[in-house]
Parts: sequence; C-alpha cells; structure tokens
Amino acid sequence: MKIRIGIFGYGNLGRGVEAAIRQNNDMELVAVFTRRDPATLKLRTAGVPVYHADKAVELKQEIDVMILCGGSATDLPVQTPALAAHFNVVDSFDTHAKIPEHYANVDRAARAAGKVGIISVGWDPGMFSLNRLMASAILPEGEDYTFWGKGVSQGHSDAIRRIEGVADARQYTVPVEAALEAVRSGAAPKLTTREKHTRECFVVAREGADLARIEKEIKEMPNYFADYDTTVTFITAEELAEKHSGIPHGGRVIRSGKTGFEKEHSHIIEYSLKLDSNPEFTASVLVAYARAAYRLSAERQKGCRTVLDVPPAYISAVAPAVLRKTLL
Amino acid sequence: MKIRIGIFGYGNLGRGVEAAIRQNNDMELVAVFTRRDPATLKLRTAGVPVYHADKAVELKQEIDVMILCGGSATDLPVQTPALAAHFNVVDSFDTHAKIPEHYANVDRAARAAGKVGIISVGWDPGMFSLNRLMASAILPEGEDYTFWGKGVSQGHSDAIRRIEGVADARQYTVPVEAALEAVRSGAAPKLTTREKHTRECFVVAREGADLARIEKEIKEMPNYFADYDTTVTFITAEELAEKHSGIPHGGRVIRSGKTGFEKEHSHIIEYSLKLDSNPEFTASVLVAYARAAYRLSAERQKGCRTVLDVPPAYISAVAPAVLRKTLL
Repeated sequence: MKIRIGIFGYGNLGRGVEAAIRQNNDMELVAVFTRRDPATLKLRTAGVPVYHADKAVELKQEIDVMILCGGSATDLPVQTPALAAHFNVVDSFDTHAKIPEHYANVDRAARAAGKVGIISVGWDPGMFSLNRLMASAILPEGEDYTFWGKGVSQGHSDAIRRIEGVADARQYTVPVEAALEAVRSGAAPKLTTREKHTRECFVVAREGADLARIEKEIKEMPNYFADYDTTVTFITAEELAEKHSGIPHGGRVIRSGKTGFEKEHSHIIEYSLKLDSNPEFTASVLVAYARAAYRLSAERQKGCRTVLDVPPAYISAVAPAVLRKTLL
Repeated sequence: MKIRIGIFGYGNLGRGVEAAIRQNNDMELVAVFTRRDPATLKLRTAGVPVYHADKAVELKQEIDVMILCGGSATDLPVQTPALAAHFNVVDSFDTHAKIPEHYANVDRAARAAGKVGIISVGWDPGMFSLNRLMASAILPEGEDYTFWGKGVSQGHSDAIRRIEGVADARQYTVPVEAALEAVRSGAAPKLTTREKHTRECFVVAREGADLARIEKEIKEMPNYFADYDTTVTFITAEELAEKHSGIPHGGRVIRSGKTGFEKEHSHIIEYSLKLDSNPEFTASVLVAYARAAYRLSAERQKGCRTVLDVPPAYISAVAPAVLRKTLL
C-alpha cells in the first residue's frame, strides 16, 4: 500500500513535488488540484487526473496527504487551514513573522478534524531552522549566523522589474567570503547587513530607457538594496535567457560556540546547501515530510507540527532497525 | 525544578559533561560516580558528591538522567543496560557495528524498568548519523560521503605507541581537499580510502631507536595505515606537549543528489564540524539529549532511542512556541 499524495497547486513547486514523488517508491501521486481550468494542465505523470481546486474535498477518501504548493502571501494562510479540516497536509509557508498565527490556525483545524498538518517545511524555514535549533541546543553559549546564496531572490528580481524602463531582471544574493571566513574562524564577529551579503543585478532595459536612472533607483531602493553593496549589469534579453534562466539557491547556517570551564574551546557547526533548483529541493523536503505526516496520523496524532517536532526517522522510507544498522 | 543529572565515569568525557551542565540553566549536577576511589576525584563543581560506582542504584530517586561517560569497548556494553534498569540513561556508544546489539540490550532493560535510554549520542554516531538520515530522505537518489578531520585519532595514536622504540605519538586524520572539492562539485565521484584521507603522524622516539624501522612499521601497519598516504615526522617530547596536546577533531557529511524529471538538477547538502575539543563537544551533545530523555520519560515513554528517534525540539531548553517564533 503506497502513501497516496495529492498536489494542491501546480506551479514550479507543484511540478517539483510531482518529480520528487517518482524518487520515492513508497508513494504515489493520485491527483493534482488547480484553480485554473484543469483541462489546461499537462502533467508529466501518466494517468494522474487533474481536478479543479473546488473538488478537493470530494476526494478526501482517496488521499492520505495533501501537499500544498501555493504561495505564502495569500494562498497558504487560507488554504492550509481549510484543507487541514479534511486532509493531512504539508506546506512550505515561509513568512517567518506570521508562522505563530499560521500554526495556530492550522492546529485548530487539524485538531478538530483529527488530522496532522506540518507547516513551514522546506529549507528556510525548514532544514535551516532545524539546524539552528540543534546547534544552539548543543552549544548554548554562542552565536548564530545565516548566509544565503549564491542564489536567485525572486522578491528582489520582482522589485527590479517594477522599475520604469526595466523589461526583465534577475537578482543574485551573494554571501561575502570574508565574512564567512571570519565566522568560521571562531571569532564570533558582529556583522552588519552590508558585511554579510552583496546583491548582483542583471537587468534587461527597454529600448531608450535611462540606464543611469535605473541603476540609481535600484541601488537606492529602501529595504531591498539600499543597505547592501549592489552591482547592476545591463544585459540583453538573450543573455538573460541563456545564462540566468535557472533558479539556483542555497546558503548556510553556522553556529559558533564555546565549551569548557573557562570557555577555552571553540566549535563551529555549519550546515550548507548548494541547490541547482530551489523549488525542486523544497519539493523534495515537502515529500519527505509528507511521509512523516502520514505516519504521525497513522499513530492517531493530530494537530499542527513543524520540522522541529518530527522525529527524524519518520521522514525516511527506510525501517528504523535498518537505519540503526546502516547509517547510525 | 531542575533536571537532576548524574555522571557515571569521570575521564575527559565526564569532565566535559560537568562543564556542559554549567551552560544549561535547567539542569544541575547532583552526583558523580567512579570506579576509582571517590576520595581521589577533584570535581570542578562545588558541593557535588562523588560516590563509588557500586553506590549508584542507591541514588536512583535523586537522579533524573544518568549520563554514561565510559568507553565503548568494554564499559558501555555492560553499564548502559545495567543502569537502564534503574535510571533514564544517555550514552555515546560508538562501535558502529555493534549498535543493533547494544540497542536491543538497552531496550530490553529500559522497557522492563519503564525508563528511557538514548544511545550512540555524540557526533559520529550522533549528529553525523542524523544528517546522513535526513539528507538521504530528502534526496533519495544520491551518494553519501563522510570525511573526518583534521583531527586526532586516539586509536591510531595508540597503535603507533605500541611500536617498539616509540615513546609517544599523535596521529591526525586529514581529509584530502581535492576529494572534498570533487564531491562538492556534484560529480558524485567514487573515492578510494587513499583518495579521501591522509594520515599525519608525529612521533617521539626513544633514545637510540631505529627511526627508519619505526617509520616503515607505521606506514605498513594493516588497517591503520597501509591503505593511506601516511607521513611520519619525528619530534621531541617537548614539541609534542607544546603543539599537539589538544584533542581537536571534526569532519563533514556530504550528500550529493539529483532531482528533476530527467535528474537534471544537482544538490549538495553538507554538514560540517570543526571542534577544538572532541570530548567536550560530545559531552555537549550528551547533555542536550539528557534533556530529551527526561522529557520522553515524563511522557511515560520507555525503551531505547537514538538521535534518529528524538523530536529535535526535545533537546532544546527553549519552549516550542518560542522556537517557532524566533528561529523557525
């Protein structure tokens, strides 16, 4: 009996989940739900039906875990609690400041329905959070550092695209190597925003646009760029398509801590990701935690969980005794 | 009410646990147990009694979790099951091949007594195991790599000391940088033992010893050195004491995996440790998992667990709602 998965939302993340399910033999994709016209969607997996989102509840008996693949701004705050009233759910809600509220909403719905919801699954929040938790529990006296990149920031790319005269843009967040080295040395430096990351912008301007004005508007944009050393490079649409069409990302969480009676020993714990495809990696984490949601539900647990709550072995398809024998 | 901790065995690891408890305000050290004459032990923590190991069971009402700090070869296989019949226990049993047997013994004793035992806690086994598990669950199609060092291998140092004419020695395991880079590139190389690590030996010879013979015996020693590129440097006892008295270690676990319908995207997950003091870091992990043992026991769970089974939030002193708000 395979774990029967539904995908709710079929953009980059939904397609990533579809691909990831193929790599997990204990799971099968049973349906995809979309708010678009289902007839317009072409899945990669033969024989899997596409339904309109409104039909989801009618399939509640056919689906063990629904993986939500919508956006955090407006989709998930509504969809995850609504679907948790009928399904075990997993989402990648990533608006850090609103996690407690989202958690409470999903917990209420899932408890009432006797279902399990695992929220904020992915890499940040997600694997990065887990590593921040574990490293700070192991080394209580220390400092945490998170560096992102090198990778594409969709939000920053969008912000550039909204500037007059910009046809398209791609923004990379880049960690500053000197800052990384300072952290890894155990010196526990205090770092400003500017010292940690730079921002590299590749911009396609419309014909006749004022390039100097565009560059100035980017570099002075508050919140997005003003606090960073930003470089702007104008390129052609062809070059953008050729060299910047991927969605790579990554980053690292570092804990620098001290032990010993005189705090005489330094320790560095570093967790890093280098990802060719941000959505496919996030999707892979979602699928692993869908397995955990299924197992928690099978134990009659209910309510909201995060990656911080889930026993690690629950995300693995391998039996606990085999895990102990082969990789412990 | 603090979590009351006992330390069973007071060598490097036991002293590390004593130091780590000071960094955790929700815990207190209530007793140390030793097989030596208790009067010969000088603790660093004022007011904590030292008892002979034989007295441990008499204090079962005073101790919430006993942290075992003996060796894996002969101490822990006997001590952990014996003490799990009376206490919640945590150990750092690290003989990988014998973990299933040790698990079964501790599980039997702990279940019968209604106690919790968490075994093989530390960094390898321990944090490295946890990262191997999670990375392989997230990226099912891929390769695992474990590199150790740069760090002191006690077993290899001891092996050199047993050679005739050797007064003292220190052996460092060193990862090969080119191998690391090949792995991080996503190429998923097949690496031989020799390609992954080199071994650096610093040896103090007895007066008049045949240095060439010692070097040859080291380099040709089966299992320990024969499969590696090994360098031998003869130094004085003074230099050994001055430059090689620490017990640093570390290493990294890397997962290189693919995602996508055509496996067209590569991902690298890397977890690395750089430790000034191997025993103090292991002790810090033990103390964090002692908190988890206490909490699992408070929920009336019983039996043996490993780091693969424990919900991550259970090792943190911070409340779950605060964790979600501040670090998720």
